[in-house]
Amino acid sequence: MRILLTNDDGILAPGLRSLEKIARQLSKDLWVVAPDYEQSGASHSLTLTQPLRVRKVNSRKYAVRGTPTDCVIMAIDVLLKGQKPDLILSGVNRGGNLGEDVTYSGTIAAAMEGTLLGIPSIALSQNYKHQHPVKWATAEHHGAAIIRKLLKQGWPRDVLINVNFPDVVHGQVSGVEVVRQGKRDLSDLVIDDRVDARGVPYYWIGFRRQLGAPAEDTDLGVIARGGISVTPLQLDLTHRSTLRRLKAALP
Amino acid sequence: MRILLTNDDGILAPGLRSLEKIARQLSKDLWVVAPDYEQSGASHSLTLTQPLRVRKVNSRKYAVRGTPTDCVIMAIDVLLKGQKPDLILSGVNRGGNLGEDVTYSGTIAAAMEGTLLGIPSIALSQNYKHQHPVKWATAEHHGAAIIRKLLKQGWPRDVLINVNFPDVVHGQVSGVEVVRQGKRDLSDLVIDDRVDARGVPYYWIGFRRQLGAPAEDTDLGVIARGGISVTPLQLDLTHRSTLRRLKAALP
Repeated sequence: MRILLTNDDGILAPGLRSLEKIARQLSKDLWVVAPDYEQSGASHSLTLTQPLRVRKVNSRKYAVRGTPTDCVIMAIDVLLKGQKPDLILSGVNRGGNLGEDVTYSGTIAAAMEGTLLGIPSIALSQNYKHQHPVKWATAEHHGAAIIRKLLKQGWPRDVLINVNFPDVVHGQVSGVEVVRQGKRDLSDLVIDDRVDARGVPYYWIGFRRQLGAPAEDTDLGVIARGGISVTPLQLDLTHRSTLRRLKAALP
Repeated sequence: MRILLTNDDGILAPGLRSLEKIARQLSKDLWVVAPDYEQSGASHSLTLTQPLRVRKVNSRKYAVRGTPTDCVIMAIDVLLKGQKPDLILSGVNRGGNLGEDVTYSGTIAAAMEGTLLGIPSIALSQNYKHQHPVKWATAEHHGAAIIRKLLKQGWPRDVLINVNFPDVVHGQVSGVEVVRQGKRDLSDLVIDDRVDARGVPYYWIGFRRQLGAPAEDTDLGVIARGGISVTPLQLDLTHRSTLRRLKAALP
C-alpha cells in the first residue's frame, strides 16, 4: 500500500513525525510532500498567482512552497508521477479540526483534494490546550488501529474522513465515536489591534474559543469527553431542504 | 438595509464595480471591505501567521492585505463596529464558482464567513470563456432582481446562496434555476513545468477544464445552457449515510 503523507503545519512540524510513526505501522511505501512553511488556516486554497517551488529532502520526501492543496496536486501530478498512492494521510495537525474549523483547515483541505483526485483520504488532528504541551503520543498510539478499521470498512469515493484525538494521555482515551460535525459558538472572535515598531497600526486574528457545552453527538462533544472522533465529510455542500423550498418559490 | 460588499479579486477588480452597481439598486447604505490584491483560490483561508494591514479608501471603503475571510472578519469586528450589516454580497467573481470550485473559492468563502457570523450572505460569479471579455453586464442586469427575490423568500441561518451568471449577453439568459452543486471531471488537471530566468525549475497550477456533459440539474448544467444558477450551500459537511454505516461498523 502506497501512502502519501502531507500536512498544513509544514515539513518540519512535530505532527508530521507523528504521522510518519503511524504510517510506518501500516506500510513501508511512504511518500512525504508537505508545505515548506506553516499553512495553518490555509483552507482549500490553491496557489494560482504565484509559482510553486519544490525542494527535495530525499527521494521520497519533498517540501513545496505552497499550500496543502498545492502539495497534493504536485505529489500526484508531478512528484509521484505514475505511482498514484492508495491512501493519503494529512496531519497530524497541531490542534483540533472540529465543527466549522473544517472549512478553514489546510489539513482537511489536503484530504479534500485527495478525495477529488479519487484517492481515499484521512485527516488527523491532535487537540491540545493553548500553552500546554501537545500529547502527540495519543495520536501515535491510536492512529494506526483506527486507520486500519476505516480501510477495512471503506467509505464512498466522494467522502473524506476527519479523525480528531483528544487532549488526554493515550491510556485515558474514552473510546472511538463516529459522530457528525458540530458547531462552535463564534461570538468570541478575537482580533488584536496593535501598533508596529514604526507606529503603524496592524491587526492580528486570534483564536476562536468554544463557549457553552457542545452537542454530545458531535466531534466537539466527543473531544470534550476525552474520546476520539471520526466524522465522514462530503464535498457536495448543497443544502437539500432549502434547494427544494427555493425551487418551488423562486423563479 | 446595510450591505457589506467584498470579493476575492481585490479592491480594484472590475467585478467589484459591477457588484456596487447591483447593490446601489438595493440600498444606499453600502460598505466595501475587499482584499488589496487578487486572492483567487484563497478558499476559506484565514491569515493567522501574518499581521493584517488596512488602508482606508474612503469612510465606507477599505482595502485589507488579507484574504476574503479576513476582510469579512475585519469588517464586522473592526471597521463597521456596532453597525452589523443586514446582508453580505461577495463578488462579482471573474469566472464561475461551480461544482467543487466552491471549496476553493475565496468568493464563496467570504459568504461562508458572513453566514458563520450570522449574516445572510450571497456569492455572485460571472462565467466567461478564457481569453474572451467578461460579460459583466449580464450580472449587472439580473443581479438585483435575483437578490430581491432571495431576500423575500429568506433562507436558513446556516446556509449561504451561490449565484452564477452565464456567459451570454443579458437578453439571452434562458432563466433562473435553483439547482444542486454539480461535479467536474478533474482528470484534466494542468500543471506547467517551467524554468525561471536563473535556470531554476518552478511549477504553475493551471485551470481545470470541464470534460463531458454535466448533469442537467446542477449549477454546471444550468450555466452550460445559458441560465442563471442559484444553489443553497451548507457548512455542515457531515456525510449522513456514511455516518450511519460507520457508526454501526466501527468501534
